[in-house]
Amino acid sequence: MFAARRLVIAAHAQHKSFNFLLKKLHVSAPLSKLDLNGVYPPISTPFTSDGKEQMDFDKLESNLNVYSKSPLRGYLVQGSNGEYVYLSPEERVEMVRRVRRAVPADRLVLAGSGCEATGDTVRLTAQMAEAGADAVVVVTPCYYKSGMTDAAMVAHYTAVADASSVPVVLYSVPANTGVDLSAAAVARLAQHPNIVGIKDSAGDISKLALMVHQTKGENFQVLAGSASFLLPALLVGCVGGICALANVLPAEVCQLQALFEAGRLEEAAALQRRLVAPNAAVTRQLGVPGLKAAMDDHGLYGGPVRAPLLPLPDAERQRLRQVFADAGFQ
Amino acid sequence: MFAARRLVIAAHAQHKSFNFLLKKLHVSAPLSKLDLNGVYPPISTPFTSDGKEQMDFDKLESNLNVYSKSPLRGYLVQGSNGEYVYLSPEERVEMVRRVRRAVPADRLVLAGSGCEATGDTVRLTAQMAEAGADAVVVVTPCYYKSGMTDAAMVAHYTAVADASSVPVVLYSVPANTGVDLSAAAVARLAQHPNIVGIKDSAGDISKLALMVHQTKGENFQVLAGSASFLLPALLVGCVGGICALANVLPAEVCQLQALFEAGRLEEAAALQRRLVAPNAAVTRQLGVPGLKAAMDDHGLYGGPVRAPLLPLPDAERQRLRQVFADAGFQ
Amino acid sequence: MFAARRLVIAAHAQHKSFNFLLKKLHVSAPLSKLDLNGVYPPISTPFTSDGKEQMDFDKLESNLNVYSKSPLRGYLVQGSNGEYVYLSPEERVEMVRRVRRAVPADRLVLAGSGCEATGDTVRLTAQMAEAGADAVVVVTPCYYKSGMTDAAMVAHYTAVADASSVPVVLYSVPANTGVDLSAAAVARLAQHPNIVGIKDSAGDISKLALMVHQTKGENFQVLAGSASFLLPALLVGCVGGICALANVLPAEVCQLQALFEAGRLEEAAALQRRLVAPNAAVTRQLGVPGLKAAMDDHGLYGGPVRAPLLPLPDAERQRLRQVFADAGFQ
Amino acid sequence: MFAARRLVIAAHAQHKSFNFLLKKLHVSAPLSKLDLNGVYPPISTPFTSDGKEQMDFDKLESNLNVYSKSPLRGYLVQGSNGEYVYLSPEERVEMVRRVRRAVPADRLVLAGSGCEATGDTVRLTAQMAEAGADAVVVVTPCYYKSGMTDAAMVAHYTAVADASSVPVVLYSVPANTGVDLSAAAVARLAQHPNIVGIKDSAGDISKLALMVHQTKGENFQVLAGSASFLLPALLVGCVGGICALANVLPAEVCQLQALFEAGRLEEAAALQRRLVAPNAAVTRQLGVPGLKAAMDDHGLYGGPVRAPLLPLPDAERQRLRQVFADAGFQ
Repeated sequence: MFAARRLVIAAHAQHKSFNFLLKKLHVSAPLSKLDLNGVYPPISTPFTSDGKEQMDFDKLESNLNVYSKSPLRGYLVQGSNGEYVYLSPEERVEMVRRVRRAVPADRLVLAGSGCEATGDTVRLTAQMAEAGADAVVVVTPCYYKSGMTDAAMVAHYTAVADASSVPVVLYSVPANTGVDLSAAAVARLAQHPNIVGIKDSAGDISKLALMVHQTKGENFQVLAGSASFLLPALLVGCVGGICALANVLPAEVCQLQALFEAGRLEEAAALQRRLVAPNAAVTRQLGVPGLKAAMDDHGLYGGPVRAPLLPLPDAERQRLRQVFADAGFQ
Repeated sequence: MFAARRLVIAAHAQHKSFNFLLKKLHVSAPLSKLDLNGVYPPISTPFTSDGKEQMDFDKLESNLNVYSKSPLRGYLVQGSNGEYVYLSPEERVEMVRRVRRAVPADRLVLAGSGCEATGDTVRLTAQMAEAGADAVVVVTPCYYKSGMTDAAMVAHYTAVADASSVPVVLYSVPANTGVDLSAAAVARLAQHPNIVGIKDSAGDISKLALMVHQTKGENFQVLAGSASFLLPALLVGCVGGICALANVLPAEVCQLQALFEAGRLEEAAALQRRLVAPNAAVTRQLGVPGLKAAMDDHGLYGGPVRAPLLPLPDAERQRLRQVFADAGFQ
Repeated sequence: MFAARRLVIAAHAQHKSFNFLLKKLHVSAPLSKLDLNGVYPPISTPFTSDGKEQMDFDKLESNLNVYSKSPLRGYLVQGSNGEYVYLSPEERVEMVRRVRRAVPADRLVLAGSGCEATGDTVRLTAQMAEAGADAVVVVTPCYYKSGMTDAAMVAHYTAVADASSVPVVLYSVPANTGVDLSAAAVARLAQHPNIVGIKDSAGDISKLALMVHQTKGENFQVLAGSASFLLPALLVGCVGGICALANVLPAEVCQLQALFEAGRLEEAAALQRRLVAPNAAVTRQLGVPGLKAAMDDHGLYGGPVRAPLLPLPDAERQRLRQVFADAGFQ
Repeated sequence: MFAARRLVIAAHAQHKSFNFLLKKLHVSAPLSKLDLNGVYPPISTPFTSDGKEQMDFDKLESNLNVYSKSPLRGYLVQGSNGEYVYLSPEERVEMVRRVRRAVPADRLVLAGSGCEATGDTVRLTAQMAEAGADAVVVVTPCYYKSGMTDAAMVAHYTAVADASSVPVVLYSVPANTGVDLSAAAVARLAQHPNIVGIKDSAGDISKLALMVHQTKGENFQVLAGSASFLLPALLVGCVGGICALANVLPAEVCQLQALFEAGRLEEAAALQRRLVAPNAAVTRQLGVPGLKAAMDDHGLYGGPVRAPLLPLPDAERQRLRQVFADAGFQ
């Protein structure tokens, strides 16, 4: 019933994209392809351990220091694991500014700028660009689930990409949002000159393959949203991954992609298989409290989470350690 | 795996509640029972029709004028149908202030003050109280679904209720949030002296009955979250409803409760059955765009929605009219 | 994509129904309305306690003896709680034959005759009629979920009802089947002269109300599929219930309907609220093993379940007793 | 609540397995490892096109003739795509007997023998072995979803494997059953000497990787349940696939595995990406009617489906052709 509305916004969206293209041509600035190839941790946001839940920029820098030793392609600031829904807009921008200052120019800074409202997303995107983001990663709006049709998604992302001075990466994470950006909508959006890729965290490897297939010939790159399926994603044509586990084991996740690129498939597959259980522990099973606890265990600063998330009980902290140890990661 | 964490926060929460109770006793202010009995529209937020998506307070007042002629118990400002996720915190508070000024003191103003973070919710709750809200209605946080355990919910609502100067009403709306506040968590929270009720929109009538049963003896009132099951909800012990459809048909929804209270059950049941299809059209099927279109059709101002929601296509607007007409509502 | 197929079978189905009508007219047998009003236990299937999992007809009769003292309208043999999926077709028919012999003619015997294949359902329906069933209750086929469109359902039930010599009751139980028979399909099927009602176990009270509304004027009766929402279902126009809990507490479930019909609403509501937790325990939470354990506790024979269902562990048996005791049922 | 029951059956199950092992040792028959490596179509069941829905063994043989030209490892008879839920037990066994006779001994015949009841599954398994099956593939029982705990699954499969004279392959297909056999249960069952593998159709590539990791050292092989993720599955350690699409494009699906094994990854990935859309069309989107239509289009006999499945409307048949053509398969 009432299904026709899904198709309503196409003409409008295409019109705006066309204007965007003209504008770009007018200033004679050829769109440089932003090469997203590689591994990124969606960095966690460090809070002070004094119970005040304030952002702790010293700990942020010390973490970035550790990360600098691994061949990461860059960082996603304000992914799901950054507790962005618990930060004010000002905190979100400040975090990006600090990361940009702290890391060298050859490491990409991707900034999460998604909000529920299209207007808010446009505004925060502009602030993120100004704060130094190389690109923005825009999560799907999700509150009115039945209203988030393909047409609504296409209109939303088109408006954001039209207005943005930096490239836009789509971001679909159904486990948190309850909304899955369809392959059909992605194929449409991939034609926009300022939309350069997607982070897809659903773990549906055939959808990843389909998106690569449907967008070939476009300037469009698909990133795996988790280390648990990074290797198969690379095999079907993804260019890298934004992986929570890279907050804890940055070298190992980079090594996974390096082994693949070197054609050392058996070693890659063995490493991939070992990563699944630790990855599940710090994502699906224990969430951000588990991720931060694992960081604490591995020479990084995890620290407390913001409420309503609860700290990890000691018993589970023990079991978490066991999962990493069982997989051979101390 | 890792299930034990669900139980961790109990002691802490109870301790804070106890402090709260002492504080209340200390100032010798006996908790007056806030009587929630009756029907409330979760009012929609009027935006200007000039494409700028600004809040239109003139239209708000004209709608409230229409509503003043029906025996509504009050208004929920910033329920799901108020597009609150698309409003800034300042807009959210301003809307409450305007409603409070526009309606007489004997009509309750309930203000939605839920945010993802506990701290943000505490702050917005204080602002809502200051803006004149009689009580706040606090939607469940929902982004990290697997982290929103009973223990997290109990800790979250306890913190909010401890800090709030006005009574707190819980709010569970799984169709939007993907999170269902459990009957067990509700039974725990009902013991808090500053938590006076719940709006439950899930439509599980046996859960409503169970919550009434489990909280009897407490100062706790259960409100149906939709007109589609208001009559059966009243029968099992609910005290009223916060119903999207009351934005369009305020007199009819009030009449439903009046017929029940007068013992005219057959008429009530016939009216209830007629309301189901129109209700489904403006909620589950067409969402806020459908609700606003139906308001436009029934002598109220609906007007445009904020993006990424899309306006209702003409063909569906026609079908919507037909659904109301088929049920005998012109 | 490919949505058009949902509409394909209409003409065919109507044609067959028309033939059916003609056939009925031809033999000049006016369709007598089968009055379904009342409460039915979907009786459990007793197995011997010697580990051989054989049907135990002595225990069946002793249970029916107990039930004869309550004003039940009849019995459903081979509902979900009858473990029908674990019985051979021969056992299914034999069970119906035994019940029919054991109970007086004024108690209805409804027989579950649903199979995955339409042809198998037609054949088993004929055998159930021959074994003495007053009507058949036909669960939705469900294995190929995406293929079970409205059109497929209408064609399936039309074929079964055309061929059946006894009236057909539709049966939707999404918790087991993963398939929800839509209100639209029900409205279509209610026009068939040999389809006289539906057992709906989903617990969506507004769907129950809508079905009553949409089928008024038809010879069609809606039955609640669970005691947990029997009272509200009666209020919106259902005529009774087929309730697992009536296997354990037949008198109390009958009393619930009697109180409603006598207009003693407050007592009815209080009883309804008390029934929710015990009902949940023997259905959603513990399933058939819990139901049978509760029967053992309440003077009936529950006995073992067939594998792969597991017997209820002792600890849970204790908790089950507590749930009943807490609600005041010893 | 009541969660403890999941652990109850372990001791019993282990005891029976031990007996089984002793029995095997006693007869001095070393368990030969059944090598499952390769591609299998889960063959569709041909019915006569005269409207009588009878099994058509001539068409079966002509299809097998076509398949004999591709390097398939064998055939699954009575997978989900074989409409086994619409066949009588006698038809199920007869189909296996016919396939066994028609194909050479070096092609494996896997027979689906899963039923809801453990006892029925044991009996049908024996008949399948007698009919010539090299192994049985046993789908998870699924009707009482909440009762299908890990403990129930372990007990069920242990009983079946203990009793079976041929090796047992687990089979998890949540899209049809609504039940997902957990990696933990699989790890337990992999230790049984007569359980040699699993067909997993869920498409969760990280679960496939985890199962390979957890069962290394066991005589246990993981098969992908669909061509849409066959290549990534092989990469993470699966040994082959049972793929609906191999009914239509047997050579291409075999070629996918051959390219992988030859280390020609880029070609393999390109082929994998082309297969996703056609695969989705004949499985998730159009189901068995789509699969049979595509067979008709590609030189095989698909023919009609059994009711309640509906034949594919002409318009969708056209679109199906287009999907194959777009992907380069005529």
